[in-house]
Amino acid sequence: MAVFVFGHKNPDSDTVCSAIALADLKSKLGVECTPVAQGEINPETAFILDKFGVDVPEVKTAFAGEKVFLVDTSDLAQLPDDIAQAEVLGVVDHHKLGDLTTSNPLECWIWPVGCSATVIKSMYDFFGIEIPKSIAGIMLCAILSDTVIFKSATCTDKDKEAADALAKIVGEADLQTLGMEMFKVKSAVEGTPARELVLRDYKDFDMSGNKVGIGQLEVVDLSILDACKADLAADIAKLKAEKGNHSVFLLLTDIMKEGSEMLIVSDDESVVEKAFGAKPEAGKVWLDGIMSRKKQVVPNFEKAFA
Amino acid sequence: MAVFVFGHKNPDSDTVCSAIALADLKSKLGVECTPVAQGEINPETAFILDKFGVDVPEVKTAFAGEKVFLVDTSDLAQLPDDIAQAEVLGVVDHHKLGDLTTSNPLECWIWPVGCSATVIKSMYDFFGIEIPKSIAGIMLCAILSDTVIFKSATCTDKDKEAADALAKIVGEADLQTLGMEMFKVKSAVEGTPARELVLRDYKDFDMSGNKVGIGQLEVVDLSILDACKADLAADIAKLKAEKGNHSVFLLLTDIMKEGSEMLIVSDDESVVEKAFGAKPEAGKVWLDGIMSRKKQVVPNFEKAFA
Repeated sequence: MAVFVFGHKNPDSDTVCSAIALADLKSKLGVECTPVAQGEINPETAFILDKFGVDVPEVKTAFAGEKVFLVDTSDLAQLPDDIAQAEVLGVVDHHKLGDLTTSNPLECWIWPVGCSATVIKSMYDFFGIEIPKSIAGIMLCAILSDTVIFKSATCTDKDKEAADALAKIVGEADLQTLGMEMFKVKSAVEGTPARELVLRDYKDFDMSGNKVGIGQLEVVDLSILDACKADLAADIAKLKAEKGNHSVFLLLTDIMKEGSEMLIVSDDESVVEKAFGAKPEAGKVWLDGIMSRKKQVVPNFEKAFA
Repeated sequence: MAVFVFGHKNPDSDTVCSAIALADLKSKLGVECTPVAQGEINPETAFILDKFGVDVPEVKTAFAGEKVFLVDTSDLAQLPDDIAQAEVLGVVDHHKLGDLTTSNPLECWIWPVGCSATVIKSMYDFFGIEIPKSIAGIMLCAILSDTVIFKSATCTDKDKEAADALAKIVGEADLQTLGMEMFKVKSAVEGTPARELVLRDYKDFDMSGNKVGIGQLEVVDLSILDACKADLAADIAKLKAEKGNHSVFLLLTDIMKEGSEMLIVSDDESVVEKAFGAKPEAGKVWLDGIMSRKKQVVPNFEKAFA
C-alpha cells in the first residue's frame, strides 16, 4: 500500500513541489510513496510543473486508515479533517511547530529556513540520493516562490545554497529571470473571481481562541490589483461572515517595493495597530517591509491576540 | 546569552547524555549552549558521566525569557511549567510528536529510532563535526540504556550502527559487558526509598482526558525487587491519590527474561485487559515481551482509553 505525501490546504508551489520531491526521495529509499494535493494547484504551480514536465498530483482529501508523510505544515487547521485516523510517518516543514500530535514515533525534519524544498535538498544529500533534473527544477522554483526570489525575511543562506546547487543540476543560470517569469504568472488576476484570489494562499489560524484567516497575494506591482481591490475587500467581509471568523486579513504583497498592503475585516481592528504599530484607515493599511506571513505577520498577530 | 539544552522531567540517561552532546555540537556550530537537567540525575547516569569524566549538569527548572533546545520529548507534561515563556529553538527526539507548539519556526530532528543520542550521532556526521571521546562514551551508554542493550522493541539498525561507530571512537569493544555494568547499577535498589524508585523513570500522560502515570524500573533479574514489591505497590496507590490520577502503572521490567510485571492502581482496571489482553490479579499482571513503555505500553493504553 502506497504512502501518501501531501502538504497544506490551498496548496502553494512549495507544498506541491515538496510533496512530489519527498515522494521521489522516500520511494528511492524503499518506501513507495505517491504525492497528492489537498486541492487544485494554483496557476504558478501549474506553470512550474509544466515547465519541468512533472505530472500534476491528484487531489485527495480523505486519509483515514492511510499512512502519510506531511510537508510544509504541522497545523491541524491546514491538514485533512480525518488526519487523526491516519498514521503520520513523518513531517518535513519549515514553519513553527503546530498542534499535530501522533501516537507513534515519527520522522521529522523541520528547519527554520525559507522553504520545505530546502530541507528536502539536504535530505537527498544526507541519504546520498541523486536528485533527478525535473525534480531539481520544481524544488528550485519552490524556493524562488517561497523566498520571493530570496527577498523574503524568511530566506536564509541555506535556501540560497540549496537553490544554487539545484540550479546547477537543472542547468539554469539566471534565477532572477526564472523567478520573475513565475511571479508574472502568479500576478495574473484578470478574469479570476475575487474568491479564488482570496483563497489562493489563505490559511486559518487559532490565535488565543480566535479564528483568524490570513490570505496573501504576491504581485510584481501592486497597481495590478487596483481594478479588483474593492471586490477583494468585499469578498473577505463575506468570507469572514461565512466562516464565523474573528478576523480575515488579506496581504497584497508588492515584491518589488518589498512591502504589503493589508485589507482588514475584524471584530477588533485595534489588533492591527497592536501588531504592527500602524493605524488602518478605511479597512486597509500599508506595511513597509512586511512580506512574510509566516515570519512577520503571524507572530505579530499572535502576540497582539495573546 | 547561553542557550539551555535539556530533556524531560525525571531525567534518564538518554535525556541527560543527549542534552550534553547536543550542547557540545551546537556550541561547535556557533550557538553557545549549556546543558542542564530538570532534576537530579539517577544512579545509572551518574555512573556513566563518572566513567567518561563528564561534568554533571546543573539542575534548572525555570526558563521564562530563555532560548532553549529540547531533547528526548515534545510533551508539555514532561517540560518545565513555564516552557511557553521560553523560545524553543529546536527539538531532537525519538518519541511520538507531543503537544508542544511554538510561535516561531524551529529546528526539529525527530526520528523513529531507539534513542535521542542516535539522532545526535547523525547530526554530528551531517554537520561534519568530530565527536570528542568522552561525549561519544556517554552517547554510547545512552543508546545501550534506552535500547536495553539492543533488546528493546524500539531498537533499530540505526541505533546499532550509531553504537558501533561510537564504540570505535571510544575504543570500547565489549558492549554487552558495558551494558550489563550499567544495568547492574540501575538494578541496585537496596536502601532506596520506594518513592524514589517509583519516580526514577516516571511520566504522566494525558490519555483522552485522563491523567495516567507510567513508571518503569528495569532490572537484570526481577527477583531483585521481591523484597520491596509490596512497598512499591503501596507507594503507587499513595502517588495516585496525591496526584489525582486516573491510573498509575509501574512496569518492573526484567531485561533478561524480556518482559514486564506491571503493578496497577486505576479507577478502571479493565483498561489493562483492553490494552494487553491479560487480566490483572491482585493489582498486577505479567506482560511477556513487553519492555518498551514508549512503543508498546503507551500506544496500547492510548487505544484502550480512546
